[in-house]
Amino acid sequence: MATFSAADHRYMARALRLAERGRYTADPNPRVGCVIVREDGAAPAIVGEGFHRRAGEAHAEVNALAAAGERARGAVAYVTLEPCSHTGRTGPCAKALVEAGIARVVVAMEDPNPRVSGRGVALLQSAGVKVETGLLADDARRLNPGFIARMETGRPLVRLKMAMSLDGRTAMASGESQWITGPEARAEVQRLRARSSAVLSGVESVRTDDSRLTVRAAQLGLENADEAARRQPLRVIVDSRLRLPETAACLAEPGRTLIATVPGHDAEKRSALEAAGAEILILEAGADGRVSLAALVAYLAAAEAVNELLVETGATLAGAMLDAGLVDSLWLFMAPTLLGAGARGAFALPGLERMADQRRLSIDDVRAVGPDWRIIASPLPAGAPGDTKVP
Amino acid sequence: MATFSAADHRYMARALRLAERGRYTADPNPRVGCVIVREDGAAPAIVGEGFHRRAGEAHAEVNALAAAGERARGAVAYVTLEPCSHTGRTGPCAKALVEAGIARVVVAMEDPNPRVSGRGVALLQSAGVKVETGLLADDARRLNPGFIARMETGRPLVRLKMAMSLDGRTAMASGESQWITGPEARAEVQRLRARSSAVLSGVESVRTDDSRLTVRAAQLGLENADEAARRQPLRVIVDSRLRLPETAACLAEPGRTLIATVPGHDAEKRSALEAAGAEILILEAGADGRVSLAALVAYLAAAEAVNELLVETGATLAGAMLDAGLVDSLWLFMAPTLLGAGARGAFALPGLERMADQRRLSIDDVRAVGPDWRIIASPLPAGAPGDTKVP
Repeated sequence: MATFSAADHRYMARALRLAERGRYTADPNPRVGCVIVREDGAAPAIVGEGFHRRAGEAHAEVNALAAAGERARGAVAYVTLEPCSHTGRTGPCAKALVEAGIARVVVAMEDPNPRVSGRGVALLQSAGVKVETGLLADDARRLNPGFIARMETGRPLVRLKMAMSLDGRTAMASGESQWITGPEARAEVQRLRARSSAVLSGVESVRTDDSRLTVRAAQLGLENADEAARRQPLRVIVDSRLRLPETAACLAEPGRTLIATVPGHDAEKRSALEAAGAEILILEAGADGRVSLAALVAYLAAAEAVNELLVETGATLAGAMLDAGLVDSLWLFMAPTLLGAGARGAFALPGLERMADQRRLSIDDVRAVGPDWRIIASPLPAGAPGDTKVP
Repeated sequence: MATFSAADHRYMARALRLAERGRYTADPNPRVGCVIVREDGAAPAIVGEGFHRRAGEAHAEVNALAAAGERARGAVAYVTLEPCSHTGRTGPCAKALVEAGIARVVVAMEDPNPRVSGRGVALLQSAGVKVETGLLADDARRLNPGFIARMETGRPLVRLKMAMSLDGRTAMASGESQWITGPEARAEVQRLRARSSAVLSGVESVRTDDSRLTVRAAQLGLENADEAARRQPLRVIVDSRLRLPETAACLAEPGRTLIATVPGHDAEKRSALEAAGAEILILEAGADGRVSLAALVAYLAAAEAVNELLVETGATLAGAMLDAGLVDSLWLFMAPTLLGAGARGAFALPGLERMADQRRLSIDDVRAVGPDWRIIASPLPAGAPGDTKVP
């Protein structure tokens, strides 16, 4: 691997920060940043920078080249992701870098898409551009966990969010649950939605709360809230028995609502939901006669280009997602309150009857969010001896 | 209030640290430290220091004076608690300070016992000793939260400990619970027991786990583990229907076991338990026919000099203690695992049916303990708007 200078690190860090500006808007494309630096003056100087804001708009490299103009000739480009070599909605970035006269390209990580990985680098090298890869690669991967998961595994990154009391309760026995957590935690959930390609819920939760599952600009607590709220994540409702009422609030919201169900429902009910704005997705049934969650998640990656999937639902579907091994991380928002053993639990795990079968987690982060506490945890493989790291 | 110098602060801080050395042994007496300083040399120098190790042994002041010997004459004494003026198992410390020729006494906090508070100071002053109080008083109060509670309110400080999964479960439906948390958390619970005057549990928990409720030196993780484990906290078992078997493991352990029950049980069952080593305490029944928890807690303070009471029990008694307003702080040890909604809940709060009735808490501390997380929280008064501080 190449050796990188302190200046290389500084410019790539800058490119990573630029990429972050596409956090809420670049989907389904990856978040990418680019910095162009001339080294021939008294001191190196940034002559152009850019990031990828939105699918269909210019890529990071093209934006940075446009800013640099003629000063790009002989310069170094720092890019957080391997420049593309294909002609999509925009021209290939590798070609644009060559044509602008870039002399050296530093790449944080190669394209995770196995079908094109390495091609951008090869195109640059064949044109005589010096290419070095791997600088701050871990940070670059953290920018696009969902995009990378989809490219590498055919599945989105799945986050399961749950708002609960300190004693693990998400609602009263009656279903009443608004609000367990405070406005700061709810704003963070809004930001999680805004960065996600899709939000998944079960019909029971959607019916109980008449959930809209939308991003609301006023609740994001972001400077660029209006821009972040313009793209609504795809709403996906698991509804094996097609029980969602046509009057459900989410069907009237901007953006799409996809109802995942199994074959055999009557055409009239389907048509009524479609007339109300829903799209119906018919998937194979699992052994229990319900929607196969693994099939649904794979479908979302393949057909809907879902990178990051946020699951916001009740105990039954949450437990089923965990049991199916489909959850990459749990985002638990714990309110400083007790609701008691009569209130609803967070995760239905019907097969779990012995301590030996407990679902061990690794705690990745614990922090205060307003008066509440946010715990991020990852399921460990079954039979794992538990996390003995001190975080 | 007097103005204290940086040196005064330093010596009192030293006295506070000395007092801490009695954390596991001074009970039922308060933890007290004393430092004696001569200011007539080139630089001030500590000539004696001491702490109160054990009831029946010398008080902190007497130990410090013994160490100082003749050098105490004309010196300053820093004491974390007002010197006593009464003749108990040891002579009055205020008199000892006078007789040793101490010229000035700095006191962190006055005696919290309203019947004697101020008398030690008055005795010193009447003998011509200069006395200043209030230096690092908050720290001094934190040394003896239980002793102070007992003196000021007639109740012990009550800590409720619960080991649970991240989804708020303490055991499988079968009762199986060993072990949810790791050895580090269990060692911390051992240290909580060791500093407590008494450990309270319900008969159901004791039966299920055949709990011993003892301090085990090998599990304390302390340098002075043997000394800390020598005093076993009083074991208190709430057993309204007198169902504890005579073969219960705790009855054979060193230290005392008190069974709190209601009147009307047959003498034979009582005698059998007494023969097995239990003491039977008959208390008035509450409205539900069970032991009145408020009466029990008041009894423990008044008759057993219980300063710090640790509650280690199941959901029913834990919920009842909370509902009775008897819990000062919750010590929740959360393991990075999920046990699912079929497992046992942590707190039975039978009257809680609406969100408006939730039991709001203030979070006082959150930290990692080995692989687990310890959350310390305090119940807020009913109807409180919730904790909006960011800890």
